[in-house]
Amino acid sequence: MLNQLLIDEIIKKALNEDMPFGDITTDNLIDEQSISRAQIIAKEKGVIAGIDIAARVFEILDDKVVFKKHVSDGWKVSKGDIIAEIQGKTRALLKGERTALNILQRLSGIATKTNEICEVVKDLPVSVADTRKTVPGLRILDKYAVKMGGGSNHRYSLSDGVLIKDNHIAAAGGIKKAVELARKSIPHTIKIEVETETLEQVKEALEAGADIIMLDNMSIEIMKKAVAIINKRAVIEASGNITKDNIREVALTGVDIVSIGALTHSVKAMDISMKLK
Amino acid sequence: MLNQLLIDEIIKKALNEDMPFGDITTDNLIDEQSISRAQIIAKEKGVIAGIDIAARVFEILDDKVVFKKHVSDGWKVSKGDIIAEIQGKTRALLKGERTALNILQRLSGIATKTNEICEVVKDLPVSVADTRKTVPGLRILDKYAVKMGGGSNHRYSLSDGVLIKDNHIAAAGGIKKAVELARKSIPHTIKIEVETETLEQVKEALEAGADIIMLDNMSIEIMKKAVAIINKRAVIEASGNITKDNIREVALTGVDIVSIGALTHSVKAMDISMKLK
Amino acid sequence: MLNQLLIDEIIKKALNEDMPFGDITTDNLIDEQSISRAQIIAKEKGVIAGIDIAARVFEILDDKVVFKKHVSDGWKVSKGDIIAEIQGKTRALLKGERTALNILQRLSGIATKTNEICEVVKDLPVSVADTRKTVPGLRILDKYAVKMGGGSNHRYSLSDGVLIKDNHIAAAGGIKKAVELARKSIPHTIKIEVETETLEQVKEALEAGADIIMLDNMSIEIMKKAVAIINKRAVIEASGNITKDNIREVALTGVDIVSIGALTHSVKAMDISMKLK
Amino acid sequence: MLNQLLIDEIIKKALNEDMPFGDITTDNLIDEQSISRAQIIAKEKGVIAGIDIAARVFEILDDKVVFKKHVSDGWKVSKGDIIAEIQGKTRALLKGERTALNILQRLSGIATKTNEICEVVKDLPVSVADTRKTVPGLRILDKYAVKMGGGSNHRYSLSDGVLIKDNHIAAAGGIKKAVELARKSIPHTIKIEVETETLEQVKEALEAGADIIMLDNMSIEIMKKAVAIINKRAVIEASGNITKDNIREVALTGVDIVSIGALTHSVKAMDISMKLK
Amino acid sequence: MLNQLLIDEIIKKALNEDMPFGDITTDNLIDEQSISRAQIIAKEKGVIAGIDIAARVFEILDDKVVFKKHVSDGWKVSKGDIIAEIQGKTRALLKGERTALNILQRLSGIATKTNEICEVVKDLPVSVADTRKTVPGLRILDKYAVKMGGGSNHRYSLSDGVLIKDNHIAAAGGIKKAVELARKSIPHTIKIEVETETLEQVKEALEAGADIIMLDNMSIEIMKKAVAIINKRAVIEASGNITKDNIREVALTGVDIVSIGALTHSVKAMDISMKLK
Amino acid sequence: MLNQLLIDEIIKKALNEDMPFGDITTDNLIDEQSISRAQIIAKEKGVIAGIDIAARVFEILDDKVVFKKHVSDGWKVSKGDIIAEIQGKTRALLKGERTALNILQRLSGIATKTNEICEVVKDLPVSVADTRKTVPGLRILDKYAVKMGGGSNHRYSLSDGVLIKDNHIAAAGGIKKAVELARKSIPHTIKIEVETETLEQVKEALEAGADIIMLDNMSIEIMKKAVAIINKRAVIEASGNITKDNIREVALTGVDIVSIGALTHSVKAMDISMKLK
Repeated sequence: MLNQLLIDEIIKKALNEDMPFGDITTDNLIDEQSISRAQIIAKEKGVIAGIDIAARVFEILDDKVVFKKHVSDGWKVSKGDIIAEIQGKTRALLKGERTALNILQRLSGIATKTNEICEVVKDLPVSVADTRKTVPGLRILDKYAVKMGGGSNHRYSLSDGVLIKDNHIAAAGGIKKAVELARKSIPHTIKIEVETETLEQVKEALEAGADIIMLDNMSIEIMKKAVAIINKRAVIEASGNITKDNIREVALTGVDIVSIGALTHSVKAMDISMKLK
Repeated sequence: MLNQLLIDEIIKKALNEDMPFGDITTDNLIDEQSISRAQIIAKEKGVIAGIDIAARVFEILDDKVVFKKHVSDGWKVSKGDIIAEIQGKTRALLKGERTALNILQRLSGIATKTNEICEVVKDLPVSVADTRKTVPGLRILDKYAVKMGGGSNHRYSLSDGVLIKDNHIAAAGGIKKAVELARKSIPHTIKIEVETETLEQVKEALEAGADIIMLDNMSIEIMKKAVAIINKRAVIEASGNITKDNIREVALTGVDIVSIGALTHSVKAMDISMKLK
Repeated sequence: MLNQLLIDEIIKKALNEDMPFGDITTDNLIDEQSISRAQIIAKEKGVIAGIDIAARVFEILDDKVVFKKHVSDGWKVSKGDIIAEIQGKTRALLKGERTALNILQRLSGIATKTNEICEVVKDLPVSVADTRKTVPGLRILDKYAVKMGGGSNHRYSLSDGVLIKDNHIAAAGGIKKAVELARKSIPHTIKIEVETETLEQVKEALEAGADIIMLDNMSIEIMKKAVAIINKRAVIEASGNITKDNIREVALTGVDIVSIGALTHSVKAMDISMKLK
Repeated sequence: MLNQLLIDEIIKKALNEDMPFGDITTDNLIDEQSISRAQIIAKEKGVIAGIDIAARVFEILDDKVVFKKHVSDGWKVSKGDIIAEIQGKTRALLKGERTALNILQRLSGIATKTNEICEVVKDLPVSVADTRKTVPGLRILDKYAVKMGGGSNHRYSLSDGVLIKDNHIAAAGGIKKAVELARKSIPHTIKIEVETETLEQVKEALEAGADIIMLDNMSIEIMKKAVAIINKRAVIEASGNITKDNIREVALTGVDIVSIGALTHSVKAMDISMKLK
Repeated sequence: MLNQLLIDEIIKKALNEDMPFGDITTDNLIDEQSISRAQIIAKEKGVIAGIDIAARVFEILDDKVVFKKHVSDGWKVSKGDIIAEIQGKTRALLKGERTALNILQRLSGIATKTNEICEVVKDLPVSVADTRKTVPGLRILDKYAVKMGGGSNHRYSLSDGVLIKDNHIAAAGGIKKAVELARKSIPHTIKIEVETETLEQVKEALEAGADIIMLDNMSIEIMKKAVAIINKRAVIEASGNITKDNIREVALTGVDIVSIGALTHSVKAMDISMKLK
Repeated sequence: MLNQLLIDEIIKKALNEDMPFGDITTDNLIDEQSISRAQIIAKEKGVIAGIDIAARVFEILDDKVVFKKHVSDGWKVSKGDIIAEIQGKTRALLKGERTALNILQRLSGIATKTNEICEVVKDLPVSVADTRKTVPGLRILDKYAVKMGGGSNHRYSLSDGVLIKDNHIAAAGGIKKAVELARKSIPHTIKIEVETETLEQVKEALEAGADIIMLDNMSIEIMKKAVAIINKRAVIEASGNITKDNIREVALTGVDIVSIGALTHSVKAMDISMKLK
């Protein structure tokens, strides 16, 4: 599901960053031919994401490594679960350990957090979406992890979604003109979203023919009114300070999508360790 | 203090990631000649890190931009403080906003967290160090932010520090042999650290002439004994599940350094926003 | 409108390709300090695209060059018109000439061809769109040129538009299931297009809720029927062997978009030359 | 015959350009394990070039793919001929299709056009050469295709051939001085070519000891005289507005080489398609 | 022992440098399927370094090549010894020959020179270290070769060792302050070295707690006094114009390390050739 | 004269190699605003090459640096001569020093050695040429230095010169066939050279129409005979174990070119230092 060419670039960059002149402990203490076995183990419960990328780290360092995964991305694990077993050159295992875990722990942290939030609204017709608040250079990974946790992706970049904000509106001379101008300039495969902060703006966006209307930082009461006004004529996205604690209330207003920057900008790494035998 | 060549590479990679085919909203709605002013504002209190990198994002997009910073990296700000004022092409401001904030918010988040922990032990002769648990490709930034928060850096990579763990010890045939082997193989400018889990190992490491002894996941009681045994003959690093809550207790045992992976692997982005006028 | 970072990469790659070990004629015969003036001249009529990129080629080779453009991208020129005047180091002018012209001639060729086709249907409510049949590595340029010629862009890549073809339909088990599956998996900012070859498929796609329906290689008669069936409930794209000669007939069926691979896969370079004085 | 390292770079760049965030249609609708078969088919007659590069596209996406080519580069095919059969992961076939065809169609278009022109003079002792008017970044491919069509290559870059033009002559103070200066400055493995527009210049170039004399935009009559003057003492290249229609007349003047920019700057893609079964 | 990812990058860069448009002799004269055998032979005695990198050059050009090495890095060979036997595509052997030998000859030259110098002091408790005076872009290789010759590595880069020179001292306001400032700013895994030119400075450095004291360009007499003063309280490095001829005298003063820039900045390539059969 | 784009790439790569995580001495001890002056001084006599590249190193680190060169490339300097004066940020001077000197010392070493050899035959009609035995990745620099020393360049790469060796001859079925095959396959701008070891082969190469005949490892007597046989009908290159000591004797045989691998494969760095004030 991921572009393997990009994944390999990311891994190689990370490995080079971690050993510009080699691993001076391992290279000097471990025999080149030595083979070891290792386990990757969950030290807390969570949703796994990035297991194939972790595997790829070791494959890049040792093309004969055997990486046997016990779970797939998107699966839930409990504390103590063995996530994968590895057999390969000891040097490769020791050199790749940190890079593999750095990726696996971050992505599983994102997937776990996303999943916890999705659980709160799982019976409601709403999706939980990410944003562009991802780590520079790793957006493809961060957004993948959100999907593995049960969330959905907002636009990947400034090239594949239109989000008209107040500055765009001011420059174009009103929401109507902004939407028209965008419509005739962008690929016909891409929808137009307008960010609104008042019901007045919601109405304007609706009249302008916006495909998606974002309700930015609105109160629950205002959101309800906005949903009623829009009345299924546009997709509705709620955004702004939404957390696990208030998402259910937001979702119950009838919005279609809730987007949450914290899914990727504030990540608690999942506790996962690797043990060589 | 940062290698500007690498910073520029990171920024360009991030900008390309965020607009492989341009910013289809801004490019189509905002006039190329339009100039705007913007403010970067702290939405919560914290320690700033990455302000010059944020500035550089806009300079790369508009070589005539004026970026006036009100604070420098390492400074504390309060909610509502203006961090910087920018004047430049509206297109550049809108295109660079997310990349600049993604970096600034992450680094300030790291600096803030580091600072909070450092405050707890500021009267004690201990430093708070990071680890290699950084985001792949951005280690140089993550470790810089730790310093801006008042922390210190552990080794940058596997090439500039020796950390002998159980697998290395087993392969070499004991701590003494491992240290000897490392000593004669590595540059004489680099110290040797040995990871220990028991007092027995601490003694062995000390006898082997380790420069640094890591006390891994030891209880406070055991740590105290280890400190007594070592008796200033090696630098002592405590590691393993140390948090803001228990760091003071750890520091009081007399260790020299406390290393905390969470400084960089579990980051809460600082709330910072940018407003165009 | 173009991502300048990518443009610079393309130009540098091209210049390095054209002189891996320097320009052995110019470097040995022209004095380093010599300054010359040059003109870029249209040798035939057409629509210009790429003039700022041509300028950038010379700026990269000589940061003091003065490049004065007489026309902007999208403007029509006649045979003999001066497109730009340049003054700078003679070496830079001679080294950059071929790279600048290779880009300018190709892009202007695309813009000119696109414009000729657009002219045929300019009174009709239809747009002329490109495809992904672009030169590997230069898609951003090819698609830019199409816009400069008056055309519109189809999706930029496989990441920013969904186009469900027979293989996808077969794998999903029908159009309806394919559309549903896509809808819940992709960003909500992206539309879903279904490729159809029969009226039966058109009906299915419509029922499945496709945002865009592509009429692939249909006869004019069938297209008319499809347009009637769809009846404004989806955007309609006609595709397959459409040329300047038959586009008016196609457009008159009422389709919204006509996409033409030949805009970018079969390009006649516009005749443009550069003369040093 | 091609530098495989560069080919791989070109392919990877193209694939990344075409899916910066994956193929959102295929990744979401096609099972990862699904295997398909496909055929690449000529939809018109022509000369094939680039078949191994097309194969490589699929190998990069699926290292177990089986690509069975029915023809080799340089072979002529008729409408309906099967060019290759492929079996591999359905996802890899769908993702690689456009990139493989974009390359194969362009290169086959170049080979076909070159071949048509070569046919016109095949009984004459003349070669048909390309120029540096190639697509930026793909010169190695464009020039390869010319050879597959039966043409020959002019210099690859500014580093491997000397072409003295009027500006160089003026700077050096005459053709004689220019040739002398070049001769003593360049590798002894490289020939010197002088561009001439009059018979006077032809004589000067000859006396100066030019290895190759280019007759630039001369009339047939003048060319005949130039050939007589040169009388085998230098290689003769004719250049400037030579097409399939007038090449025979040019060749009959006795020139050794005819160079044609349009072989690569104005390419009609050969109609080739890929069908999954 | 080397970072294979970096080695591959270096090799690919070298091969692309050596054939931007292919090998026009071999590609045109040697059949693509032709297989040959070759030998790499020592034409003089020396210490081999880089044999696995040479092997990798051919593997990158022909993934089926068989490269059978007769010696390993660090081994001594005599004139006429066969270093390796290769069987693979003739094209790959001819294209890779120069790149493989350029690396193998340089690295073996470094290893041989290093070894000759080490031999002179092999009975003394001193190591012979390299410096940062390596070829730009190939430091990882140059320093590897020094180790293969029996030498040791000084710091790899400005990031993994502190060397305080007069400018640093002046800026900090004395050696004591400079060492203190460095100590609290750098990773605790890295030692601090101070460069001294007088006995006065040696004393200051010692008092400042420098881990390593460099005696820069001192006479033998002064060095002896410095060694006595330091009296095992710091590691001692001698540097400056030390050669094979005077190293024994220097070593006998009791210094721990002798560093020699010429190990890598002035290299005589070892005479090694490759013969195809 | 050098491709500045490539020079910048080489410099940036070298600087990144030398400080993957910054210069931990300078960054921590020298104030960011501090300005210093420095001199680059010749510590022995020689021919300078690379002074503009050295300047560029500092410009890349500090865009306001003032680099005033006292000599230009190709000039001779004596011990003690000031080569350049620099004023700029102290940090930039200290960080760039090693990289600048590593390049300047190597290139000046090559230029000096080349010049010494050229001096021996300066009254004879012969040129002293380099080979492809250059440092991987730096060929453009090595060959530039040879020219600055008064030497000439042999082919830059396998793409811009044909050198037919015994394996090529065997594969083609004789020298005559090999030359014919090459002639019709390569660009007409490139000459054909044949390597010969016997007078018999010299005759064959001459009859085959080789443009250049290499006399490989022949005795002085045989070379004289070869020169007589060739009698100006081809350019003659002597190669194989030619040094400063025997080059005059070789040149007196009447060969046109003497090529010497040692110019670039065995380089003694010129002693040049940089002093901050």
